[in-house]
Amino acid sequence: MNSNQVQIFDTTLRDGEQVPGCKLNTNQKLVIAEKLDFLGVDIIEAGFPVSSPGDFKSVTEISKLIKNATVCGLTRAVKNDIQVAADALKYAKRPRIHTGIGTSESHIKYKFNSSKEAIIERAIAAVSYAKTFVEDVEFYAEDAGRTDNEFLARVCEAVIKAGATVLNIPDTTGYCLPEEYGAKIKYLKENVTGIDKVILSCHCHNDLGLATANSIAGAMNGARQIECTINGIGERAGNTSLEEVVMILKQHPYLNLNTNINAKLLTEMSHLVSDSMGMMVQPNKAIVGANAFAHSSGIHQDGVIKNRETYEIINPADVGINESLIILTARSGRAAIAYRAKNIGYELTKLELDKVYPKFLDFADKKKEVIDADIHQIMKLTGVLKQIYA
Amino acid sequence: MNSNQVQIFDTTLRDGEQVPGCKLNTNQKLVIAEKLDFLGVDIIEAGFPVSSPGDFKSVTEISKLIKNATVCGLTRAVKNDIQVAADALKYAKRPRIHTGIGTSESHIKYKFNSSKEAIIERAIAAVSYAKTFVEDVEFYAEDAGRTDNEFLARVCEAVIKAGATVLNIPDTTGYCLPEEYGAKIKYLKENVTGIDKVILSCHCHNDLGLATANSIAGAMNGARQIECTINGIGERAGNTSLEEVVMILKQHPYLNLNTNINAKLLTEMSHLVSDSMGMMVQPNKAIVGANAFAHSSGIHQDGVIKNRETYEIINPADVGINESLIILTARSGRAAIAYRAKNIGYELTKLELDKVYPKFLDFADKKKEVIDADIHQIMKLTGVLKQIYA
Repeated sequence: MNSNQVQIFDTTLRDGEQVPGCKLNTNQKLVIAEKLDFLGVDIIEAGFPVSSPGDFKSVTEISKLIKNATVCGLTRAVKNDIQVAADALKYAKRPRIHTGIGTSESHIKYKFNSSKEAIIERAIAAVSYAKTFVEDVEFYAEDAGRTDNEFLARVCEAVIKAGATVLNIPDTTGYCLPEEYGAKIKYLKENVTGIDKVILSCHCHNDLGLATANSIAGAMNGARQIECTINGIGERAGNTSLEEVVMILKQHPYLNLNTNINAKLLTEMSHLVSDSMGMMVQPNKAIVGANAFAHSSGIHQDGVIKNRETYEIINPADVGINESLIILTARSGRAAIAYRAKNIGYELTKLELDKVYPKFLDFADKKKEVIDADIHQIMKLTGVLKQIYA
Repeated sequence: MNSNQVQIFDTTLRDGEQVPGCKLNTNQKLVIAEKLDFLGVDIIEAGFPVSSPGDFKSVTEISKLIKNATVCGLTRAVKNDIQVAADALKYAKRPRIHTGIGTSESHIKYKFNSSKEAIIERAIAAVSYAKTFVEDVEFYAEDAGRTDNEFLARVCEAVIKAGATVLNIPDTTGYCLPEEYGAKIKYLKENVTGIDKVILSCHCHNDLGLATANSIAGAMNGARQIECTINGIGERAGNTSLEEVVMILKQHPYLNLNTNINAKLLTEMSHLVSDSMGMMVQPNKAIVGANAFAHSSGIHQDGVIKNRETYEIINPADVGINESLIILTARSGRAAIAYRAKNIGYELTKLELDKVYPKFLDFADKKKEVIDADIHQIMKLTGVLKQIYA
């Protein structure tokens, strides 16, 4: 594998679906999974098979369907979970079992009422058992973000010996700062025997708005898999947004990190997930929000009309959007009115623009947005005639 | 001023309002401004007075109303803009004029068709002119994120000499990575004569989902003002979220950086802005989203019921929410059913839970969410009687 390649592990159908009120049926999941495969994700986490008969069925059907991506099923470090997951994955071309256990003091003490040594034993047992079914076993050290690095390194070393192929270092509660999370990945790269035989994976939550930054910090420090969801959906404040990490790597070529994602499909993919789940994307969501490429202030509009790159770092076409929008509001300047008027047939002279602009501001101060119908009315009121018939 | 104090500069009413379709009238702006003052923001950017008569009026009325916060008005490096802003701010207890100009090559070349020397001259002239009206003048170096550090330092030095009190270093296009943005602030702290007399300010956009991380990186490297908006609204993918930076600083006390914000009002403030603008907040928005403290997976629910801190790093009450939610879905485990059933009067024995759980999964596989009415029905179908009458 190319060492500059970052694997994109999509968990929209597992962690993403852990959203209150967003349950998908098996057919909806199949449609999404097929599109994810087409988008170019490397791994699809299809569900948590032991959790319900519906989830088991979905993982089974997705395993049968998917041609390219690895299909992964989640388990706890529990024999029955692993056996059920193996069963659900048996038709997959490239099956992966994802197993693990909490490693932070809070999880060991309150969740498992256990000890560090016992946790390591359970981790080894789970990975060894999963290896009896599949070659590709990913281990998660739950709440790794709040686990002390020395103990985390011991856990990692133990599960590598037991045969884990991927080590997932989740910031389960979304607590880490990017510096901290990056340093954690760096510590593991430098202190775990056998670390170069496996892939380190970032799985970050967005409770403080830092999931994307933490994942990138992880990749900059040696992680080569990022776990993420479309639109950043997931438990609580959600997971890392697939579209954000992909575009960050694409727009910062000096990082020398690549993914297999076809970015032109991102907008379409976002709409499919949002529509299927009834989970709306806020207009100001990065990359896929309705306003992500909309300009409404006069200063910005003027700049974009002169040269797109003054205010846009991504060409909207690169993520599957036809063009940037120039929205007319009270903050819009003359350049924007002239631009939009021209689009619908009025080539304004400077003199005409002087007449039109105060009338436009009247309209704009009363309305949220001035639309084409308003422009026609403004032209009529100021006596400007249509000159272009396009 | 305490050097560990980070000033919160709220621009919800200026950059935040540059959202297509989200225009507020003056009365709505007054209600929001008063609440921002109560929330504890240090500076309220109230508008861009020259842009329209409506904006001028809003800045004037907000200036009259606000008791504690500094009130700020935006201008370009244009004499008339500055004069109009000064006029709008004349009733403010603590007025600030915010002026500036683009400093990146893209802006100098395409937007101004100008040269580096001419840009510095215009910057000095704007700050000097603003100083004839008010003592507190903030300068923005637009597109500083893509401006080379050496030239940026020259601009900063020049405007400090001209009397600027605050230097705003905007990542206008949302391009920087946190490391890069932090390094930029550090470079300015180390290379600009007079930098210790002024406050460095972070103004970050969220085009790649990094606005919050960049602002924190700025503060960690010496910036002492963060410009942000409620719910992260603003042009394109929006600005830094006020609620995210405030809670990051609060939850990482070892950073030793404080704000004056009363976090308990954050949820209420978020709702006010969202309702006034008709600009919805996605359920998985950090801190203020409807699901930010909702748990639906069985593993997480079990943990939270045992001890809240296993999966929550913020006590919901600290941001004004009454309690974390345990939502019942197909991913929920026995602990969650037992917990929710108990809340409505059923204290289940282990034997009863074994009977109830498969029936619950039937319901959950068919529904997005199992609600209290369903639980009553499940109990009826499995013959469990109500025992607690609370």
